[in-house]
Amino acid sequence: MKILIITADRCDDSELFYPYYRLAEEGWSVSIASFAKTKISAKYHFEIEADMSVDEVKEGEYDALLLPGGMAPEKLRQNARVLDIVRAFNDAKKPVAAICHGQQILISSKILKGRKATCYPGIKDDLVNAGAIYFNEKVVVDENLVTSRRPEDLPYFMKAFIDMIKG
Amino acid sequence: MKILIITADRCDDSELFYPYYRLAEEGWSVSIASFAKTKISAKYHFEIEADMSVDEVKEGEYDALLLPGGMAPEKLRQNARVLDIVRAFNDAKKPVAAICHGQQILISSKILKGRKATCYPGIKDDLVNAGAIYFNEKVVVDENLVTSRRPEDLPYFMKAFIDMIKG
Repeated sequence: MKILIITADRCDDSELFYPYYRLAEEGWSVSIASFAKTKISAKYHFEIEADMSVDEVKEGEYDALLLPGGMAPEKLRQNARVLDIVRAFNDAKKPVAAICHGQQILISSKILKGRKATCYPGIKDDLVNAGAIYFNEKVVVDENLVTSRRPEDLPYFMKAFIDMIKG
Repeated sequence: MKILIITADRCDDSELFYPYYRLAEEGWSVSIASFAKTKISAKYHFEIEADMSVDEVKEGEYDALLLPGGMAPEKLRQNARVLDIVRAFNDAKKPVAAICHGQQILISSKILKGRKATCYPGIKDDLVNAGAIYFNEKVVVDENLVTSRRPEDLPYFMKAFIDMIKG
């Protein structure tokens, strides 16, 4: 399996590296795309080199997409290429996972109308205004979409995402 | 399954919470013991309440033990009760996992003589002086013992530990 993560500076540390290590544990290839192929500095401490810029992403080569939270999604949602990638995964019914503020990218991608989802409480109203059906649950699964609220949900978030990828 | 983690302030964030979330993902009960039943502040950001003091631990109730690294092990290795707990798990052949500087506790527990192990490079000489057979590998398994070098080894460390617990 090939999994794509899209994130950027000031992402939440745990929401980037827990999935990054966890997907590696499955033996899968995990690539990180960002605004450029440079170092990403998470909010608190974690640093990692992006594998490519979002412009270089060949979305057809990946089996699933994951969007960490933190303060990165507010920047990423303003990038048209990021939104195109999200829509490409969703149109192809490939698993798309977002946690915490990662759902801001889903909102801007306009793929949430009528879909069950959760998110960080601070952006719940935005999720609802985007047409989603909001649930205050650790993890919400709607067809190819997996969403969670916050870092503490990571065990449930990743289990649901990995189970979905395994089919 | 019931898993015990022993750690304290200034542990490495990822070496505490990656295992903590990962073991929860398996659906297992995870308890954290420390010097007291108080808040633990990891080196960079992560905080969590300890479930109990090491004096309250009933080691016979747990199936496996995990020791994160960071700067906590140098303090914990000076606590006789911590060392007794480690020896109790090891004597019972229950899985014992340590990563990075967590091995300082294994050294002081005197359970390493003739055993294959790895650790953070900065304490390699101490591991060897304690009688261990050192390997510079992502994860080293010797009977009930699982050791790794650093946070980047976490996917391999946790896979080996979980596989061992599952038997």
